[in-house]
Amino acid sequence: METFNIHILGCGSAKPSLRHNASCQVVDIRGKLYMIDCGEGAQVGFARQRLNMTRLGHIFISHNHGDHVFGLPGLISTMGLLGRTADLHVHGPQQVEALLNVALQTYCQGMEYEVHFHPIDTTRHQIVFEDRSMEVWSLPLKHRVPCCGYLFREKAGLPHIRREVIDAYGIPVSQINNIKAGASWTLPDGTIIPHELLTTPPTATRSYAYCSDTAYMPELAALVRKTNLLYHEATYPAELELRADEYMHSTSRQAARTAADAHVGQLCIGHFSGRIQDEEAHLRETQETFQNTVLAREGMVICVK
Amino acid sequence: METFNIHILGCGSAKPSLRHNASCQVVDIRGKLYMIDCGEGAQVGFARQRLNMTRLGHIFISHNHGDHVFGLPGLISTMGLLGRTADLHVHGPQQVEALLNVALQTYCQGMEYEVHFHPIDTTRHQIVFEDRSMEVWSLPLKHRVPCCGYLFREKAGLPHIRREVIDAYGIPVSQINNIKAGASWTLPDGTIIPHELLTTPPTATRSYAYCSDTAYMPELAALVRKTNLLYHEATYPAELELRADEYMHSTSRQAARTAADAHVGQLCIGHFSGRIQDEEAHLRETQETFQNTVLAREGMVICVK
Repeated sequence: METFNIHILGCGSAKPSLRHNASCQVVDIRGKLYMIDCGEGAQVGFARQRLNMTRLGHIFISHNHGDHVFGLPGLISTMGLLGRTADLHVHGPQQVEALLNVALQTYCQGMEYEVHFHPIDTTRHQIVFEDRSMEVWSLPLKHRVPCCGYLFREKAGLPHIRREVIDAYGIPVSQINNIKAGASWTLPDGTIIPHELLTTPPTATRSYAYCSDTAYMPELAALVRKTNLLYHEATYPAELELRADEYMHSTSRQAARTAADAHVGQLCIGHFSGRIQDEEAHLRETQETFQNTVLAREGMVICVK
Repeated sequence: METFNIHILGCGSAKPSLRHNASCQVVDIRGKLYMIDCGEGAQVGFARQRLNMTRLGHIFISHNHGDHVFGLPGLISTMGLLGRTADLHVHGPQQVEALLNVALQTYCQGMEYEVHFHPIDTTRHQIVFEDRSMEVWSLPLKHRVPCCGYLFREKAGLPHIRREVIDAYGIPVSQINNIKAGASWTLPDGTIIPHELLTTPPTATRSYAYCSDTAYMPELAALVRKTNLLYHEATYPAELELRADEYMHSTSRQAARTAADAHVGQLCIGHFSGRIQDEEAHLRETQETFQNTVLAREGMVICVK
């Protein structure tokens, strides 16, 4: 199976603690790296996980709060010091650009690579990036400033050839690509062997959704329906639901509610407040509503499957 | 003896490594904290050393390179989140203000405290801050951008009363402050007991000089003459002197040369390049020229004496 891993570099909330780093993740899809959020210390977390900076082409920022962006200047200038030449693309709400501009204009003179900023309309659910094998969708979230999550989805591949059927009918190798692309095969006697008999369906596509920071959003479940893995913030324990509402964050139970309503494969919770004394209890509280839940922690690598 | 400690929070150079954090120190003088440089991760280092943020009133920045300033936005906004109300003063070259402005205008709305920026003329050696018991001097350094070090010096206290002499002459308690301030005492018969006989000299003042980043500067020794502790960058081993010249950094031997010429009490070297494979060898190389040298390392606390 092709690589589709999530590296957790930081899963704390705004007030820094010695337990967690600020928000940052790296999605590794077939060896290409995509960063989501870039809190202070992102470059150190990156190095600690022995990820290769030259494979990082895109950074997706959820919103312009310090604990999600303060790692950008350091990361960008370090890549310059390391002699990077490939373009880097930063996607995020328009508000992020001011910090990026100061970083580039003041600290990155003479760098041999370019940074391109792509503003994202956080109110829309649409494709914000795609290549041959995957696409990234924005997920409108509800927070105190414009904010969106990101949905990473593999594109459907081609169907697989049923070698034994191909051999049995003596179909030449030259036709394999046509058949993969959807063609059927006609025997000399005019009998048509349908495409579906010659192939098995393509490998199921996998998907990962990152939803942080956000108040509880019942309508989010429809957008992340049946994703294999959902990372949803669970800043507060269930008993602090009023506080969660006030600061537009979610509780453990609310994260689990969205996961359950969306019928996701697995839930990973993070963005933990310092008010969470016992993270295992926080996990159990979440699992009461959605059993297949894990706690994010720095250094963790989760395989999307 | 009153507290005069240096906490090393980061002593690496610009390319981050897993061995060292970016430049940052905290000077603790009698319980008041002064930060010198504020590389990425400063706030975490601060918390890790269990220093109290409410005691931090001033930050002194040597120069506007990322590895000396990228911790400022995070530190400043965290203090806001923690409910700080006391003013914070940031001193440094004019160039630092742009980053500070973005941090304040974009990420610190609604904060209950004010940050004041005090530009420093890095070409001059002068007092840039003082209070009743200490003063901070700028130290012009030679780097690729305007850069200065900082000299922290205790002010001379008052002389100590020689209790046995005071008692022998029956001098009333009401006169103690006058005598401390320099007065002599006249006996009923007109004999003058000179001030010098009534007192012993004030406790010797202590001083600490921070010199990073800088090319070797023979003239620096005069400015840091006889400081108790000198922190001097030693980015490169002696064999990379040409590289040190090119990037306007110093080698182990050059740091030691300045320490020896200045007759300082102790030398602490830091700002280590990733090219230093063996830090103990780097230390020995420095000690060949200046014996009383220590290697900086994160978490270290050095007592100035």
